[in-house]
Amino acid sequence: MKNTDTRTATLEFWFEFASNYSYLTVMRIDALAAEYGVAVVWKPFLLGPVFKSFGWNNSPFVLQKEKGAYVWQDMTRQCKKYRLPWTRPTDFPRASLLPMRVALVGAEQPWMSEYCQRIMQINFVEDRPIDHADVVNEVLTSLNLPASDILLAAQSEENKRRLRLQTEQAHQRGIFGAPTFFVGTDMFWGNDRLEDALIFAAQSKHQT
Amino acid sequence: MKNTDTRTATLEFWFEFASNYSYLTVMRIDALAAEYGVAVVWKPFLLGPVFKSFGWNNSPFVLQKEKGAYVWQDMTRQCKKYRLPWTRPTDFPRASLLPMRVALVGAEQPWMSEYCQRIMQINFVEDRPIDHADVVNEVLTSLNLPASDILLAAQSEENKRRLRLQTEQAHQRGIFGAPTFFVGTDMFWGNDRLEDALIFAAQSKHQT
Repeated sequence: MKNTDTRTATLEFWFEFASNYSYLTVMRIDALAAEYGVAVVWKPFLLGPVFKSFGWNNSPFVLQKEKGAYVWQDMTRQCKKYRLPWTRPTDFPRASLLPMRVALVGAEQPWMSEYCQRIMQINFVEDRPIDHADVVNEVLTSLNLPASDILLAAQSEENKRRLRLQTEQAHQRGIFGAPTFFVGTDMFWGNDRLEDALIFAAQSKHQT
Repeated sequence: MKNTDTRTATLEFWFEFASNYSYLTVMRIDALAAEYGVAVVWKPFLLGPVFKSFGWNNSPFVLQKEKGAYVWQDMTRQCKKYRLPWTRPTDFPRASLLPMRVALVGAEQPWMSEYCQRIMQINFVEDRPIDHADVVNEVLTSLNLPASDILLAAQSEENKRRLRLQTEQAHQRGIFGAPTFFVGTDMFWGNDRLEDALIFAAQSKHQT
């Protein structure tokens, strides 16, 4: 290829608003990716159906009480390390379908990162429900976006179908939790691997 | 307390020779703990009974095929990052009872770290069985240790009982995987948390 030097390194970021470790990444990825010169491809998907495919009817943090107990210890320390605010949600994992559908509408829009951060903060800092039209409307409006139009597009049959397809694709690519990153076919699991994945992307200059 | 400044910071390191992520930590912990001025308290325990208590008859990396497939991708990259040699074991998780019993005998001995590194390398670099008297004998002899005496002590009823107790203690303290670190009652799970745990230990100067 002649234009190798002009290719942009990209990283796929698969995430869920219900996922506490996705919260850490949503808050960090924009600044960090810019630092590494990597473009982020936002890939919202639903964890519920993926967990169901393993025969789980809930988050492993709920099903396995030892891991669950640990996770909240870990989150407190991780948020302190990253200087992020943190409140353990009184409802976990929170229903997230509507804001996820909106995330799919916004995935390639310039407001995506800010929108996702705002939704995550409502879940993991303000400890409020996120799966309400009022709440999503409030967030979109605060970003000076045409909230009603976006909510309408989010709730269209076509967009609902797209989110199911993206979730199915997550499953087919071997995703078993969130956040998960892909650089081409190389998969990285967990907020702990964000830096490794970005370095890998920057070095391989992989285009998706 | 008057002698606060002379206290040594300590970190409990709970591990298993069968565990691939414990391999990463066994190879790293000595040098890193010295850097942070933290003393390591080695805590060998058996993962099998802990997993069984969750209703699992094998490693989650075997039971959950998606996570299993990922783990070997991750290990290759992690070992490259830490500049450690790596061979995916043809038998996983490997039986580890005898070398674990020897680890319990050696836990407070000056040869512990080197012994553990050697056993881990046989499992994860040379891809050979580790649960054989010949193999453990070979390792102890190479460290100029009285191999027969140590093996005898390791296989005594008293030592077997101690390993069962230590495994039971791991379970009671909420351990669900390896490696796990404790600084007092603060638990850190996974090789990814080694640095965090050492920093925490150094800051709190916790004595166990």
